[in-house]
Amino acid sequence: MNMRNVESFAAGQWVSPGAGARNIASAITGDVIAQAGNDGLDVQAMLGYAHDVGGPALRKMTFHDRARMLKAVALYLREQRQTLYDLSYDTGATLSDHKIDVDGGIGTMLVFASKGRREMPDAQVYLDGPPEQLGREGQFWGRHVCTPLQGVAVHINAFNFPVWGMLEKLAPTLLAGVPAIVKPATATCYVTEACVRMMLASGLLPEGALQLVSGGLGDMLDHLDCQDAVAFTGSAQTALKLRTNPVLMERSVRFASEQDSLNASVLGPDAVPGTPEFDLFVKEVQREMTAKAGQKCTAIRRIMVHEAQIDAVISALSEHLAKTAIGDPRLETTRMGALVSAGQKRDVLEKAALIGAEAERVFGDPDNFEVVGADKEKGAFVPPMLFHCAAPDEAERVHDTEAFGPVSTIMPYRDLNNAIDLLNKGKGSLVASVITNDGDVAREMVLGAAAFHGRLYFNNRTSMAEATGHGSPLPHMVHGGPGRAGGGEELGGIRGVMHYMQRTAVQGSPDILTAIGKQWVPGATEITDRAHPFTRTFNDLDLGETFYSGSRVVTLDDIETFAHFTGDTFYAHMDDAAAKANPFFPGRVAHGYLLLSFAAGLFVQPDPGPVLANTGLDNLRFMAPVEAGDSIKVRLSVKHKTPRNEEYGEVRWHVTLTNQNDEAVAEYELLTMNAY
Amino acid sequence: MNMRNVESFAAGQWVSPGAGARNIASAITGDVIAQAGNDGLDVQAMLGYAHDVGGPALRKMTFHDRARMLKAVALYLREQRQTLYDLSYDTGATLSDHKIDVDGGIGTMLVFASKGRREMPDAQVYLDGPPEQLGREGQFWGRHVCTPLQGVAVHINAFNFPVWGMLEKLAPTLLAGVPAIVKPATATCYVTEACVRMMLASGLLPEGALQLVSGGLGDMLDHLDCQDAVAFTGSAQTALKLRTNPVLMERSVRFASEQDSLNASVLGPDAVPGTPEFDLFVKEVQREMTAKAGQKCTAIRRIMVHEAQIDAVISALSEHLAKTAIGDPRLETTRMGALVSAGQKRDVLEKAALIGAEAERVFGDPDNFEVVGADKEKGAFVPPMLFHCAAPDEAERVHDTEAFGPVSTIMPYRDLNNAIDLLNKGKGSLVASVITNDGDVAREMVLGAAAFHGRLYFNNRTSMAEATGHGSPLPHMVHGGPGRAGGGEELGGIRGVMHYMQRTAVQGSPDILTAIGKQWVPGATEITDRAHPFTRTFNDLDLGETFYSGSRVVTLDDIETFAHFTGDTFYAHMDDAAAKANPFFPGRVAHGYLLLSFAAGLFVQPDPGPVLANTGLDNLRFMAPVEAGDSIKVRLSVKHKTPRNEEYGEVRWHVTLTNQNDEAVAEYELLTMNAY
Repeated sequence: MNMRNVESFAAGQWVSPGAGARNIASAITGDVIAQAGNDGLDVQAMLGYAHDVGGPALRKMTFHDRARMLKAVALYLREQRQTLYDLSYDTGATLSDHKIDVDGGIGTMLVFASKGRREMPDAQVYLDGPPEQLGREGQFWGRHVCTPLQGVAVHINAFNFPVWGMLEKLAPTLLAGVPAIVKPATATCYVTEACVRMMLASGLLPEGALQLVSGGLGDMLDHLDCQDAVAFTGSAQTALKLRTNPVLMERSVRFASEQDSLNASVLGPDAVPGTPEFDLFVKEVQREMTAKAGQKCTAIRRIMVHEAQIDAVISALSEHLAKTAIGDPRLETTRMGALVSAGQKRDVLEKAALIGAEAERVFGDPDNFEVVGADKEKGAFVPPMLFHCAAPDEAERVHDTEAFGPVSTIMPYRDLNNAIDLLNKGKGSLVASVITNDGDVAREMVLGAAAFHGRLYFNNRTSMAEATGHGSPLPHMVHGGPGRAGGGEELGGIRGVMHYMQRTAVQGSPDILTAIGKQWVPGATEITDRAHPFTRTFNDLDLGETFYSGSRVVTLDDIETFAHFTGDTFYAHMDDAAAKANPFFPGRVAHGYLLLSFAAGLFVQPDPGPVLANTGLDNLRFMAPVEAGDSIKVRLSVKHKTPRNEEYGEVRWHVTLTNQNDEAVAEYELLTMNAY
Repeated sequence: MNMRNVESFAAGQWVSPGAGARNIASAITGDVIAQAGNDGLDVQAMLGYAHDVGGPALRKMTFHDRARMLKAVALYLREQRQTLYDLSYDTGATLSDHKIDVDGGIGTMLVFASKGRREMPDAQVYLDGPPEQLGREGQFWGRHVCTPLQGVAVHINAFNFPVWGMLEKLAPTLLAGVPAIVKPATATCYVTEACVRMMLASGLLPEGALQLVSGGLGDMLDHLDCQDAVAFTGSAQTALKLRTNPVLMERSVRFASEQDSLNASVLGPDAVPGTPEFDLFVKEVQREMTAKAGQKCTAIRRIMVHEAQIDAVISALSEHLAKTAIGDPRLETTRMGALVSAGQKRDVLEKAALIGAEAERVFGDPDNFEVVGADKEKGAFVPPMLFHCAAPDEAERVHDTEAFGPVSTIMPYRDLNNAIDLLNKGKGSLVASVITNDGDVAREMVLGAAAFHGRLYFNNRTSMAEATGHGSPLPHMVHGGPGRAGGGEELGGIRGVMHYMQRTAVQGSPDILTAIGKQWVPGATEITDRAHPFTRTFNDLDLGETFYSGSRVVTLDDIETFAHFTGDTFYAHMDDAAAKANPFFPGRVAHGYLLLSFAAGLFVQPDPGPVLANTGLDNLRFMAPVEAGDSIKVRLSVKHKTPRNEEYGEVRWHVTLTNQNDEAVAEYELLTMNAY
């Protein structure tokens, strides 16, 4: 590999490292393979470029526009992933590690693209929760909206996942409509830089949406304000330094941190040797200890096993760990590569020594292990190391020392409460896993330990074929944790997008809220002077277009007919005396489904037209009984429109059934697909 | 009024102020009326009492239990509100101010009580969002749960609302299941203390749920950890000092701040003199300037008016302000009382002088105004003061100086974009209001300014009779704001409760997630060996109890009959050729409502029994068409149970309709009310 100059992309220009660049060595050979740095980027110009160029361009797009953009970028990267794999071997990682990083990052982007289309509107304002009626007469309402921050997101990433680490933050940021400045960790920034070059070359991102800092950030944080956000992944020490920046503090700049974590895995008391859970546990712990050579923020650092099973687990786990072939990650036979750098190796061995003061090393010797296809002295290799802490209640280091490599400590628990206490001694972690087939154990764990953990991963014989792994943050699930883990949240589906948006309570009249949210609020203006709304296309329909049906008397004969036709002879429809004894009914009443069906008969326009199908119905509530002799009529209003594909979009109708006294008897939302 | 010793309630004991107590003077007479302080409370004992006694007791309760408790406490306080009113006059406030404080606080508690019952489960785990299927076969799912923090909430409150300020934080905290330590501002802590005494005397709160610190907190913050939370209301300066506490920073202790805010009100360009909006604006600004003598964190500090209207507004507003009778708040004629203290008066006059350097005072002279029924020199009286800033684009002080009294600055804008720029110059505020009857103005405001504001309040001729006021935080709506306003959020319905809970992603098999969330997840065990579930009471029914119906063939005759009976002759049901031309249908298909109705006929148990009524239906999706000759059958499983009153509870059923090939044709959730 030739020496690479890792550049920054600042205010629309690629900028070379300059004189003060730092050398980056291969994790395998120790040879210098790249240099990165910057001779003082023009930080203000970068922020200005994001604020003035990237932000406005992104905010002009709708959530659907941005979701489509993410999908296109992800597919573009997928085409070129081999280039990223090839580059990544020098970070010490194996092909299966690259897949976690590269394919995992692309997959995360695709999930956000899909959720953006399915769960967000084709609009610029995201509605958070339903409207709340604040005035008795319905002339004053409140609801919450989310709009993009009008600043920039500064992403400060860790070395271990140069691609996923960037994309998992970038996807929700761009979907929110906020430009990003990405600062990767120097040790692996050449992989990130290559990925950024691809994204920029794709031409799919608006100008100013993405910038890259290779090397230090300079005084960038000192120039942020209330519309900016910082998301950090890395050590607690660095996080503390950054988050206490006086400017961030004074201006309440959002700072999300994902940092040290003493993640644990618990073997449930039910999972004795011979159960599928026991074997699953050993396999999963082994994998989490050695994947990415243990350089995962979610890796299992503490292993908790009932005291009766501790010897069996140590023995089974050691057997598995012994099969971990260590060496050149380019070799197909290699199961674990190297740590990212010699410095990281020193750090891991120092931390392991701290743990060693409280626990006995029962597997792995850093002074005596085999490395295949590489020079053990030049590369940053360490073997998996398992420590056994016999008295974990009194121990401290095993609960607070994160050796960021293939290092883990096994410890016994006496009972479930003791296991919960030990779990929580981590004082906040990203993830804990519990391998159990017992729902009560799972529930006790949640009640006792969930408040200390960002994620609780349960696995057993039922889920093991499909489970995604203790160590895998998924885009659907929140990633982050309280306390030591930094107190932040990332990912979690649309929740993750909200970290780059401001939630604002809006209050006003129904028309005002309708204009803001592009979703019709009850009481807003009804448009009644047009043709039947079922004859009008998706594009022609306006919010508030309303159809008032004629009315229809519901007769006893109708009720009888419906009951015998459908088979629904529930006594409230058939037997006056029995119905009267029921707290809800004055006597025999019409079936709810009869009302729905008659309502459809009242509002439907039978001829072929833009309405293609009734695809669903939401939030139906029956509000008052309808007796024989009552009459019903329907009001149908366009509430919301969402494009779905090239041919048609979904129209959500607000439907109210009223009786002859204009009392509401049922309310619901009807979904139809309408041609454009 | 006799001198009151304001005590603390610490670890179950009332503790007197001790030697170092601070004197508190009446805002009206300047006489010392109380003393508060503590000679070094045993902070560790207080935290221990909350952690070991209050927390476990609260966590044993369900959300519904705690909601009922809140309601009882609120009703208990309502009975005794006169005592709180009587005490409050010495804070300088009028009866209508007391009502905002006392009744507002009680009302907030009642809203949380009601939302706790309606929007949270009768359980210990809150489910945040639906489950997400993470494995293709449905054996591995994820969802988010929220559980109470296992620590204590420390509430540090401002002087201006000694009751509401406490209760608005306490209600969500207790509903979450977290004990609180309340530290009111010393100037008005005698009112808070009286209210705490009432709540403790009520016997309605579990031991350890509520403690009070009168005087300083000592080193309490240094002892907090990742399960504790601090919520602060007050000045930016104090907030900064607290939030940078190294222990809070290192341990990622949650810190929510609600602080300085240069709230603004904008008169829409459409609201010219002669419109109802113009008059409404003048009235609302006058009220927000003078209520609580302007000592409201949400008070209007900046008034923005189109340059063409500026003179008209100054004139109309001055006329209204001139009618503000200032004096002893006990007098019925008094419209505005005093500031809370002489110190506060000095501060307001200093800040007004800063503003005066950029703006001309056009109404109100602090050296020349009338006070009725009180000694102007001894009480902390100031008149309402209106400043006019003619060049707001260049000004700085008017956008960053919060004079916490009846002081506001009016400024012209040229157009909507200019108004948005001026609004955002506050760099983050709690609330901005816009008085407009134009939906486009409202939408532009949201797109341009929402990201800078925690709340946007719109008012006009439609909403004015019901609008709740620019300055009123409502329990339903988020209260807080970005940047200068502190970056925090309070209230907002259940969102506010979440600030005292940890959100945790849980992953596992359907049975595991069902056991954790007490909500059946598809794929979890079905219980099929019992009697028809409609014959079983609410209490007897278990999650997962499942009924499989027999099947029924849908004939062409059925479709014809249904169409003519209901009037729903939509072409897809009637005309094979036309249906075939539709992208959704293979030919003539059965009505969706026919399927629903037949399904009910298939699963209903007709005789009187525990099922009292079908009250609604959610999330119905039609998934595949049903043609004549197809047959359908139903699976009905108990998904979730929620008690509703003394007689019955709501059962949510998961319903799947399948065809003869076991393909799902429709899925929905059915709601019934079942006797216990």
